Amino acid sequence: MNNPVLVEITRGAVVESRHRGAVAVVDASGATVFSVGDVARPVFPRSAVKAFQALPLIESGAADRYNLSASELALAVASHSGEPRHADLAAGVLAKAGRDVNCLECGAHWPLNEEVARDLAASGAKPSALHNNCSGKHAAFVCLACHLGEDPAGYVQAEHRVQREVKAALESMTGTTLGDDMRGTDGCAIPTYAIPIAALAAGFARFGSGVGMDQDRVRAASRIRAAVAAQPWAVAGKDRLDTVLMELFGQRVFMKTGAEGVYCAALPELGLGIALKVDDGAKRAAECIMAALLGRYLELSDAEHAGLEPHVRQTQRNWNGADVGATRPAGALA
Amino acid sequence: MNNPVLVEITRGAVVESRHRGAVAVVDASGATVFSVGDVARPVFPRSAVKAFQALPLIESGAADRYNLSASELALAVASHSGEPRHADLAAGVLAKAGRDVNCLECGAHWPLNEEVARDLAASGAKPSALHNNCSGKHAAFVCLACHLGEDPAGYVQAEHRVQREVKAALESMTGTTLGDDMRGTDGCAIPTYAIPIAALAAGFARFGSGVGMDQDRVRAASRIRAAVAAQPWAVAGKDRLDTVLMELFGQRVFMKTGAEGVYCAALPELGLGIALKVDDGAKRAAECIMAALLGRYLELSDAEHAGLEPHVRQTQRNWNGADVGATRPAGALA
Repeated sequence: MNNPVLVEITRGAVVESRHRGAVAVVDASGATVFSVGDVARPVFPRSAVKAFQALPLIESGAADRYNLSASELALAVASHSGEPRHADLAAGVLAKAGRDVNCLECGAHWPLNEEVARDLAASGAKPSALHNNCSGKHAAFVCLACHLGEDPAGYVQAEHRVQREVKAALESMTGTTLGDDMRGTDGCAIPTYAIPIAALAAGFARFGSGVGMDQDRVRAASRIRAAVAAQPWAVAGKDRLDTVLMELFGQRVFMKTGAEGVYCAALPELGLGIALKVDDGAKRAAECIMAALLGRYLELSDAEHAGLEPHVRQTQRNWNGADVGATRPAGALA
Repeated sequence: MNNPVLVEITRGAVVESRHRGAVAVVDASGATVFSVGDVARPVFPRSAVKAFQALPLIESGAADRYNLSASELALAVASHSGEPRHADLAAGVLAKAGRDVNCLECGAHWPLNEEVARDLAASGAKPSALHNNCSGKHAAFVCLACHLGEDPAGYVQAEHRVQREVKAALESMTGTTLGDDMRGTDGCAIPTYAIPIAALAAGFARFGSGVGMDQDRVRAASRIRAAVAAQPWAVAGKDRLDTVLMELFGQRVFMKTGAEGVYCAALPELGLGIALKVDDGAKRAAECIMAALLGRYLELSDAEHAGLEPHVRQTQRNWNGADVGATRPAGALA
């Protein structure tokens, strides 16, 4: 099946590049509200399901035992930019479990935000695993392991109890069975399982509405949504779309980007879950599609419309700041 | 027309992302040797045609008048990484024409190479227009304007004599007429014209073989090819594909990347020209396709095969250095 073009990049009067993809919007009953492209195809959700991966942290009691704050819970579901406040927060989470950066198995990389990376370089420092965009999730995994009485060492391995708990949460939220044939290794070394786009959307409809989940999970999901809405800087960072739009919409939107053009969201007031994957993995296209979908489903105030619109139709500027083209929704999203 | 999938990104046993595109390989007689996808579609060649844009610099006598070295000619066709040696070289070109960085109209940006950018930040400096990846081309434009007795100011405008000379070279090399309806503004502020992929390939077959060009142009093209082969660091930079593969192949290959997934090349020994565009603009896919095409057409020594193969099938590694997947040619290129 050829997924349709959903985003165009224009330059002057010419369409310069095109992005194809698939989108599913599902309501709390599991019914499809909108679907385009092959939404039955399993895709790696990557970081877009960090909220599901954080459920065992809360449901096990680990978050309460270590007295994790809203910022720290938001960091647990973050793909953060590696700003100093993110790295410090991750270190603090580890300290609450009596651990430190040496426990992290995600690897080190320069902060995702290039300005932050240059500032770090200018300070004479090198990045550590605390700057890894997944350090909050990994610090949470360490907390979970410690709370469960497990040695954190090897917590990224599929057979470690932490990853078994995480996989069970993913299966339960998405109504899938995740076999080893659908398993890959994520950038931060943990397993990632390919899941149909429609099942991911159904999972986020549950996550936002609470429909079909037991009361412990309803409370855990609600706590995560409230934490991210209260501290949206912790889940991404300065100028990042997740942060900018959750600052704008508060608890009306829970949204989370993933690598390779995946995006998931929950719109609790409408009971809707959204999942999308851009075929080629482009972040710019995934962001454009998600912004267009938010504009399609949410009732917007003038201020919200003004805040959202620049992310739906993004002006392309050259190095002199001149307007040379646009990124815009196309086809079924135009 | 749906262009076919030409590159796949795998993770574990699953294809995670897919890139579509079109490729034309044309011989010196203008005959199509290989074609996949819609090669009649006009695409912005962006920086992939810098070699054509540099022809007036040589043909006008400007390169001789200002005594430009091989490195400086290579820089004139470069999309460089903004290393100190690139910025210094651009400043030297401007000085030869009695000008300086203030003449450049390309805008400033941090070096393309993130490590170079961090080093610059660590030194306490900010980037100037000399670090713009197009600074060599722009310095060459300033030389051309000065040599022609024109005020360089406004040399990026379509109606300036420099851009009229550049456009004439593009039309002549590609056998096209470039109307204003096909004009966009490039990242560095000069006009870019959409040109059919097949016409771009034909232009590079001419550029490499000399067939169908007058003697002045044959000499100018030969001089550019020799300059880049002698100083491949100047055309891109450390670890960049153009530099790495032209270091490997010398004058057997002239290749040049462009923004938004365009790549062009000439294989002089075979009289072939190559042009390709990835629909979604992804550099990783354009590089994979170009490497696959070089492997298909060139006769390779064992050392050349060993040097090329890691760019055809690229291993994807996570932050811990573990092999998690691959970028590989697909469909007609598999």
